[in-house]
Amino acid sequence: MAGNSFGTLFKLTSFGESHGKAIGGILEGCPAGLEIDSSFIQSELDKRRPGGTAIGTDRNEADVVEFLSGIHEGISTGTPIGFIILNKDSKPSDYHQLKDVFRPSHADYTYTEKYGIRDHRGGGRASARETAVRVAAGAIAKLLLQKKGIEIHAFVSSVGECTMKKHYSEVDLMNTYKSPVTCPDAHLESFMVNLLEKMKKEGESVGGIITGLVKGMPVGLGEPVFD
Amino acid sequence: MAGNSFGTLFKLTSFGESHGKAIGGILEGCPAGLEIDSSFIQSELDKRRPGGTAIGTDRNEADVVEFLSGIHEGISTGTPIGFIILNKDSKPSDYHQLKDVFRPSHADYTYTEKYGIRDHRGGGRASARETAVRVAAGAIAKLLLQKKGIEIHAFVSSVGECTMKKHYSEVDLMNTYKSPVTCPDAHLESFMVNLLEKMKKEGESVGGIITGLVKGMPVGLGEPVFD
Amino acid sequence: MAGNSFGTLFKLTSFGESHGKAIGGILEGCPAGLEIDSSFIQSELDKRRPGGTAIGTDRNEADVVEFLSGIHEGISTGTPIGFIILNKDSKPSDYHQLKDVFRPSHADYTYTEKYGIRDHRGGGRASARETAVRVAAGAIAKLLLQKKGIEIHAFVSSVGECTMKKHYSEVDLMNTYKSPVTCPDAHLESFMVNLLEKMKKEGESVGGIITGLVKGMPVGLGEPVFD
Amino acid sequence: MAGNSFGTLFKLTSFGESHGKAIGGILEGCPAGLEIDSSFIQSELDKRRPGGTAIGTDRNEADVVEFLSGIHEGISTGTPIGFIILNKDSKPSDYHQLKDVFRPSHADYTYTEKYGIRDHRGGGRASARETAVRVAAGAIAKLLLQKKGIEIHAFVSSVGECTMKKHYSEVDLMNTYKSPVTCPDAHLESFMVNLLEKMKKEGESVGGIITGLVKGMPVGLGEPVFD
Repeated sequence: MAGNSFGTLFKLTSFGESHGKAIGGILEGCPAGLEIDSSFIQSELDKRRPGGTAIGTDRNEADVVEFLSGIHEGISTGTPIGFIILNKDSKPSDYHQLKDVFRPSHADYTYTEKYGIRDHRGGGRASARETAVRVAAGAIAKLLLQKKGIEIHAFVSSVGECTMKKHYSEVDLMNTYKSPVTCPDAHLESFMVNLLEKMKKEGESVGGIITGLVKGMPVGLGEPVFD
Repeated sequence: MAGNSFGTLFKLTSFGESHGKAIGGILEGCPAGLEIDSSFIQSELDKRRPGGTAIGTDRNEADVVEFLSGIHEGISTGTPIGFIILNKDSKPSDYHQLKDVFRPSHADYTYTEKYGIRDHRGGGRASARETAVRVAAGAIAKLLLQKKGIEIHAFVSSVGECTMKKHYSEVDLMNTYKSPVTCPDAHLESFMVNLLEKMKKEGESVGGIITGLVKGMPVGLGEPVFD
Repeated sequence: MAGNSFGTLFKLTSFGESHGKAIGGILEGCPAGLEIDSSFIQSELDKRRPGGTAIGTDRNEADVVEFLSGIHEGISTGTPIGFIILNKDSKPSDYHQLKDVFRPSHADYTYTEKYGIRDHRGGGRASARETAVRVAAGAIAKLLLQKKGIEIHAFVSSVGECTMKKHYSEVDLMNTYKSPVTCPDAHLESFMVNLLEKMKKEGESVGGIITGLVKGMPVGLGEPVFD
Repeated sequence: MAGNSFGTLFKLTSFGESHGKAIGGILEGCPAGLEIDSSFIQSELDKRRPGGTAIGTDRNEADVVEFLSGIHEGISTGTPIGFIILNKDSKPSDYHQLKDVFRPSHADYTYTEKYGIRDHRGGGRASARETAVRVAAGAIAKLLLQKKGIEIHAFVSSVGECTMKKHYSEVDLMNTYKSPVTCPDAHLESFMVNLLEKMKKEGESVGGIITGLVKGMPVGLGEPVFD
């Protein structure tokens, strides 16, 4: 079965493994005439990019998206937008020791059972790296929604027992991406960082909550039952 | 709306314009474990490639497909196969004179009305070049079908009034791609070539019929009403 | 696999066998506020209805559609329109002799191979009766298109070697459904009827051509590659 | 847009409003040869049926599903299963007072904005009654899964602050539907009932958690990214 598409009218189909040549996607349904602001798309990809903080993973991926179609002189043409992100930091050799080992809490075992064969280089298709494709397409979606007066925000509102009590209107959402834990509540942020550093030291992990926020949504979006 | 995908379980989504950086696609649903024979895929692309005969167009496109995902050490992994074909022979400058002209029998006018803006470089998305993507994906489909004992053939059986009377079993289908008009009936072929050369000289065109043939198809394929 | 739906935004999903309790469908995507003219829908169903002429089949099906949802006080509400057509003339006993026989040129053998079991009462799902569901949904589509100034016609333009030479503008398309062969060319009609009566007497059949005609279509409908 | 279908290979499309003639659906992709146990389907519908307890709503709906296609002599034939559930207890007159009133916490306002017109009889399409269609189709799915050794359970594990601490293996899941709050932990159940009765008296509501449980699921089901 397929299973790599999201959406009906505005639809992303993604491809790519963490350690292949490239990941990428095809974005269909973007109307003609939208100004594709590359620096905005890059800034969104930079937000996703791991590395650079004491509490994240060590892999450093400077994702640069290359558009191959659907854009002419910086403007969308209405045809599908094909794009790729090269895997520059891919070192399949780093994973040789995993060839015969299944990592816990990864899709390694499931993939082997499902497909019979396994691409052991990193998480393969099940790597978080695939989300870069969604971020690139999501950035274009954001540009489109902005034109219609719709704003989207997301922030970490809880890590373990550190939970934000303030209403979103009481904090400055612009602080979200200045924070190493993407929490706009500066006071709470330091508790979250302490907790995460403690957890990392102990080799432990802890759950959290992301709060999503949409402003300017028109009434009646979506369909009555599904979709 | 979307409109660039074909298939449900085995699904191709394509992107690309004739004079952008690249055309390409994502092929979903190819089962893991299929040997991806690159030279076979290239030979299929070479069949599609225009140029090289007295009766075709003059553009010469040596299409080379580059696979970016879904294949590991020559074997499909079950994940989506992303691929691109670079537009090496793209010369957008050749088309400057078309910036304000609509060619007859092309989608130029329709595109302008539909999208408001037009990428005037070649046929844009409506170019026959887009079919290279389908040929690459179709070649993988053929490899899969071959494993299941299914054979697919297609040949030109009629050009204008030159119509093949022989049953397909009376000709050698292997001759199809040796023929400049892809007609396996050597006798008829010379009449077709003469007719086409005459037409080209007169600045005229003529219709034809392609016969498709599938051998080894299992009983009951497809669904009762649609699909 | 599914395979009983047609369309994406305006979508019909159909169900039903020729000799079950009822056939029917669900029509999604009909906008709210459309006046559902029942007598028009009935007149479209009456056009499809076999029987009543010397040249058709003898089965007489007076199809009456019953709407179960999506319509309130004669106006579409925007929610899915569920409808059924009861199989009043269904006589499964007529088919007992077919229980162990495969009729030529029918889907009997294919169904048995595909599903393992066969509903031998009439053609089951593969009966032309299923098209009544499409006619009912198509009638609603026509009402919607009429509001947008789009007209659709279809007529028989050829039966065997009797081929209409006149352009559609030279005949009165309103005559189409007065004709027993649905050919608007009165002169040609008599030749077609003679040919069909002769064929029926000989236990033979003959091919034909239906010409479809759309007026008022907006420029740029449909998508560049598929759909 | 459509939006009334769920699934790809095994797909339900539903229709119907709470106070129209009937609700129903089309179930596609059910393989041929499955024994359709009507009494099991009825028992599933009875579980969904509101009414009969001190803590539920007062509306009493005895849902009886009528199958119109896809089943022959109690066995699925592989073709789409069309079915309807008549709205016997529908009293549109009960809702006259709502013609010009929007109920809080209902979709009344949203529907009016979305469709321009509103079917004010009950919740229309946005009524919980629509779920009866999913229960009927879900019951057939359960029959199919049972044949493959897959079991599905669901139970209320939390109402307000009454939270089940026991592991599901420590309770008898067969008790779930004997309980008026569908909680298999008999001890906890009485606290939940007390809390709900108190809430109902105060005209208040309270949140809860439903725990779903699948046993016998094969490894590798689903697709890597979406679906």
